Amino acid sequence: MPVRLTSTQADFAAAFAALLAAKREISEDVDTVVRGIIEAVVARGDAALIDYTARFDRLTLSAETLRIGADEIATAEALCDPRALAALELAAQRIRAFHERQRPSDLRFTDHAGVELGWRWTAIEAVGLYVPGGTAAYPSSVLMNAIPAKVAGCPRLVVAVPSPGGALNPLVLAAAKLAGVDEVYRIGGAQAIAALAYGTATIAPVAKITGPGNAYVAAAKRRVFGHVGIDMIAGPSEVLVIADDSANPDWIAADLLAQAEHDTASQSILITDSPDLADAVERSLARQLETLPRADIAGASWRDFGAVITLASLDEAPALADRLAAEHLEIITRDADAMAARIRNAGAIFLGGHTPEAIGDYVGGSNHVLPTARSARFSSGLGVLDFMKRTSILRCGPEQLAALGPAAIALGEAEGLAAHARSVSIRSNSV
Amino acid sequence: MPVRLTSTQADFAAAFAALLAAKREISEDVDTVVRGIIEAVVARGDAALIDYTARFDRLTLSAETLRIGADEIATAEALCDPRALAALELAAQRIRAFHERQRPSDLRFTDHAGVELGWRWTAIEAVGLYVPGGTAAYPSSVLMNAIPAKVAGCPRLVVAVPSPGGALNPLVLAAAKLAGVDEVYRIGGAQAIAALAYGTATIAPVAKITGPGNAYVAAAKRRVFGHVGIDMIAGPSEVLVIADDSANPDWIAADLLAQAEHDTASQSILITDSPDLADAVERSLARQLETLPRADIAGASWRDFGAVITLASLDEAPALADRLAAEHLEIITRDADAMAARIRNAGAIFLGGHTPEAIGDYVGGSNHVLPTARSARFSSGLGVLDFMKRTSILRCGPEQLAALGPAAIALGEAEGLAAHARSVSIRSNSV
Repeated sequence: MPVRLTSTQADFAAAFAALLAAKREISEDVDTVVRGIIEAVVARGDAALIDYTARFDRLTLSAETLRIGADEIATAEALCDPRALAALELAAQRIRAFHERQRPSDLRFTDHAGVELGWRWTAIEAVGLYVPGGTAAYPSSVLMNAIPAKVAGCPRLVVAVPSPGGALNPLVLAAAKLAGVDEVYRIGGAQAIAALAYGTATIAPVAKITGPGNAYVAAAKRRVFGHVGIDMIAGPSEVLVIADDSANPDWIAADLLAQAEHDTASQSILITDSPDLADAVERSLARQLETLPRADIAGASWRDFGAVITLASLDEAPALADRLAAEHLEIITRDADAMAARIRNAGAIFLGGHTPEAIGDYVGGSNHVLPTARSARFSSGLGVLDFMKRTSILRCGPEQLAALGPAAIALGEAEGLAAHARSVSIRSNSV
Repeated sequence: MPVRLTSTQADFAAAFAALLAAKREISEDVDTVVRGIIEAVVARGDAALIDYTARFDRLTLSAETLRIGADEIATAEALCDPRALAALELAAQRIRAFHERQRPSDLRFTDHAGVELGWRWTAIEAVGLYVPGGTAAYPSSVLMNAIPAKVAGCPRLVVAVPSPGGALNPLVLAAAKLAGVDEVYRIGGAQAIAALAYGTATIAPVAKITGPGNAYVAAAKRRVFGHVGIDMIAGPSEVLVIADDSANPDWIAADLLAQAEHDTASQSILITDSPDLADAVERSLARQLETLPRADIAGASWRDFGAVITLASLDEAPALADRLAAEHLEIITRDADAMAARIRNAGAIFLGGHTPEAIGDYVGGSNHVLPTARSARFSSGLGVLDFMKRTSILRCGPEQLAALGPAAIALGEAEGLAAHARSVSIRSNSV
């Protein structure tokens, strides 16, 4: 049974803190293995990639077949259900339109002292996108990672996707094509991350790697971080629903289950001021679970990590929501905007009863790669800025150097950095 | 002697690649020690902090004296050289003015399908700023970290600064006050990072930690990453100067030395199409080194990691600069803007002969916390966005759900996520 809390219970603060502290990640000791794999790929390049792919994916490759050719991608696309393909196209179009609004502006100005200042945004020159194989091969995630990179203007976007036993999800290849991916390689695991980060004879290195993966992929991303950029290490997904008695309990139960079906470590939480709604949601959820294909996963997630919290007043909700800092926050109350305005920490907010999170997962247009495990306290969902970087620009003429120089010299001297001071004074002497 | 390369030499490509690959970081095996320290602070809180401070900083504290009070800060401020204080105030004013232009805009719009979309930026609720003690206690770095956080609107900004033997740089405390820091604690090392990340009875936890530190601080930041946000792990500083024969060799030599005096692992590189300038810079640098207080450090840096690269044509410079991806890039050529426009990767660009990097370090207004070790390929200098996060917002009404729902259902089914599909269809049935 999920946790059931009431804000009026004597030990509510402690029980809520325990809910926050619950560890949902399975910690696997994979780091030593991953270090060995990365070292092998750095040392032996393609040969190591081919060896690991034979071992882990039961697939015999050569340097010539590492890359998936355009003809193979076209063949895969032809195999796709036209309805799914059309849906993917609608999704791509909406994701592109939304992310185009995230393109940042450059700035260049001259301040009152005559100093020229500003910054310039440029796209990252090459980006690698990891796409998991097997059951977690989500074509929607290909779009969510690749489209912002292309909107940012990244000239080279590379996908790595394992094909265990040679099997590939054709819709993943179709999504890569649709999103404008430049190269696709049939490699996975830590060996794929190493190849993207350090390059091989066949695969040129990239400057940043994004995309989800298993514990080996996550450990490899942590290890190559610094040599290349990475996105966040994604944890299990989560949803928080804040609802009042105007909400439909069947809809809420369906949303809680949609989150729970991702993974046994997913978390679904309902906060409401209506004990009747809480009861109705729990009953509906149990009923809906009976006919769910992934009932084992969703049931375990709900049992182990689900929570229903009833409050004396929804005025208590914002503070709790900020501490939970949920990846997905649905607000299904009479005045959802007013509630949203009072909450600081959330990856994405879905307003009103007709915005199930699944719309945002696929076709809303906003990104579904969002901060998990309370990291919405300090980080954002994936966006165009994650594929760009900002260079600051400064120019002084002789007058500006004369005006600002003495302060720079004073600070250089105060910090014991005489060469800093001299790099200014040597010019002042010539002004 | 520094490396001297010429683009016409037969092995130039290999020699340049070797320069890129040179390891400048001293790798210390501190991770095991750091793990123990973090566990102790999590388990024993203030008591562990007090123990480690006694051991590492030779300082006896109590829970009451962990925090540096306003009166102590005021006393320190009164001890500061008025000239340094005035320079700090000018710097703060200019840094604030520059960073205020970085405040991002929220967006809310309704698309042609009637879907309401957008995002909202909010400040991180609590930020910790680590300030090293000893020789690397730079008041300018306090301003560069604290002011963007305050411009972002962070309601709580906490500084941790060790005071070995009880000694504190008064100018660091003055800078903290000037920048609007809310709390200052006299703690350092991995124990300070642990206290900021997990909190103690005296120190409430923060959501993000920024600021430079030694190997222990860096290892601790890596360990708490995920539980809290961190900025980049800073490596040794570096400058690349691109110059033609219009440049003053004495000025360039001074700039190369200003970089080199930071640390024996710092790197200073000159790229020029003028062999005469290259020779003159080397001569001037040797001469200036003789009278430099930190000649030992600067000399070792120049000898071990310095490089002078002469090119047949400056047209070759942008490609090399992009591979170096320098933290600081000075362009001292006849048309610096044209050269800058051809370079993608740099942390900050300083244009023309009258813009020594030291101006940007202190009083230019732009941030001096910049990506090191080639990470300008994929990351940016510190700014206001590092202290904020973006929440995406989505709202559908019944019509929008009816219009987009079928595509979401198709993709949910294609990905084997039936509960996702049902969370949409259960509403469609009621529309």
